[in-house]
Amino acid sequence: MLRISLLRVSLPCSSSPIFSLSQSHLHSKLRPQAMAYTTSSQNNNKLLFRQLFEKESSTYTYLLADVSHPDKPALLIDPVDKTVERDLTLVKELGLKLIYAMNTHVHADHVTGTGLIKTKVPGVKSVISKVSNSKADVLIEADDKIRFGDLFLEVRPTPGHTLGCITYVTGDGPDQPQPRMAFTGDALLIRGCGRTDFQGGSSLQLYKSVHSQIFTLPKDTLIYPAHDYKGFTVSTVGEEMLYNPRLTKDEEGFKNIMENLNLSYPKMIDIAVPANMVCGLQDLAAMPVEATSN
Amino acid sequence: MLRISLLRVSLPCSSSPIFSLSQSHLHSKLRPQAMAYTTSSQNNNKLLFRQLFEKESSTYTYLLADVSHPDKPALLIDPVDKTVERDLTLVKELGLKLIYAMNTHVHADHVTGTGLIKTKVPGVKSVISKVSNSKADVLIEADDKIRFGDLFLEVRPTPGHTLGCITYVTGDGPDQPQPRMAFTGDALLIRGCGRTDFQGGSSLQLYKSVHSQIFTLPKDTLIYPAHDYKGFTVSTVGEEMLYNPRLTKDEEGFKNIMENLNLSYPKMIDIAVPANMVCGLQDLAAMPVEATSN
Repeated sequence: MLRISLLRVSLPCSSSPIFSLSQSHLHSKLRPQAMAYTTSSQNNNKLLFRQLFEKESSTYTYLLADVSHPDKPALLIDPVDKTVERDLTLVKELGLKLIYAMNTHVHADHVTGTGLIKTKVPGVKSVISKVSNSKADVLIEADDKIRFGDLFLEVRPTPGHTLGCITYVTGDGPDQPQPRMAFTGDALLIRGCGRTDFQGGSSLQLYKSVHSQIFTLPKDTLIYPAHDYKGFTVSTVGEEMLYNPRLTKDEEGFKNIMENLNLSYPKMIDIAVPANMVCGLQDLAAMPVEATSN
Repeated sequence: MLRISLLRVSLPCSSSPIFSLSQSHLHSKLRPQAMAYTTSSQNNNKLLFRQLFEKESSTYTYLLADVSHPDKPALLIDPVDKTVERDLTLVKELGLKLIYAMNTHVHADHVTGTGLIKTKVPGVKSVISKVSNSKADVLIEADDKIRFGDLFLEVRPTPGHTLGCITYVTGDGPDQPQPRMAFTGDALLIRGCGRTDFQGGSSLQLYKSVHSQIFTLPKDTLIYPAHDYKGFTVSTVGEEMLYNPRLTKDEEGFKNIMENLNLSYPKMIDIAVPANMVCGLQDLAAMPVEATSN
């Protein structure tokens, strides 16, 4: 029987170009935050958490539930219309009771699933920020708390990508998950951020939002964005403060980057934004009967 | 300030078609395993864990490291050649020392990144099963342990998709992550499994492998597969034992399903399998100088 042990196997130190210059520098830079990069340390058995991906728009949907509560109350953050069936099947299989279908903002690249969910699961309440000027069952503002069982999410306004962007952060307290988790929408992406050239966007506002509302969280806070285009699933506040190529710049440097991205007009924006301003319910007349019943 | 509380807001019970028949049944079915579905309960601060996605082949690569160890020894499971730069940049940024580049099996749908990694990070050892008849620095067998710092992975042979498929499972013990994590390759996918019609595949062998080597793990063991095509990122043993549409069947039913999938010939197989049999190193002569220099 072969046993492989770091202590027993002599491994030469890396000397390849990508490691040679900065490995020791990085070691010392990161060592104080070693624990900050443990992405799965939820020492709280109440939280059920699932990250779900919609490939076409590279959107992440998040399912959270308090499984210690008899009702197993659950919420979905940023559901996509095309994957509602998948998400609701999972909710059913896990025996959860979906109570909220929430958006971090009015998306321009896909139609939210909240409208469709409301037609399929009566009682679910849609949630979006008041500042977004959208219709929803619950309009939230700074410092609101969204409770599901004994767990809750804090509401932190992070405008800049759009005027009504919200970052939802798991609660701070002994009974809440540790490390904390921040659902940043398009305000902060992993090694990136959302564009700021439409929907009331402002690069200076986004810069202030991220630095005042997200980078002030504990460094081990897990970053769960609304999208990722490179295959990353999670990051941390500490990591983005060190390695985000845009938000590590000063305010002026950030503004210059954002004003020179030369991005094309989003192909879904003219369909998605009006639909998402009313929780995706505008097309109900055109929906299959099954989806509109109840 | 608005506060939303489950206790204060009266929410009608779901009565939509997708919930009406089975909700109460599922509640009672799943309640004893409530904790089994908490996917982030790693009450072990040693483990750094990252799940990474390669969109073209829908492949998951996993990064694990012991960040409590001074060297922060790390390993990659199922790296893809196209995303090696991304993975090594992340390893560098996190201050880790990569010691193993491992495969769950000889993939037919993408070229492994292990060969390229070895050219870029000297000292890294490639790992694959002995039964696969492939070349690698370390050839593993049943009951071997792969140690990185104070953490380790168990080696569980799970043939059936290919003859040499391995499931790597985090260690069992007070100092190891809880719940355990199983990296199942193509043996067990979320609500599915790998095909069994090439590379020494056998549906009956796969059925026995999953039932004897994976479904015998604790029900809260997290399932991290090599691929997902529907946007799921994780499941649990308990969940797959209840809801996997193939592996919940009996042996004969499973065999019938697998023999009637009518899948097309994998477009990458003639390139990927020979490359992966030698850790992706067969094309070094054709590689850019940068990639082959040390």
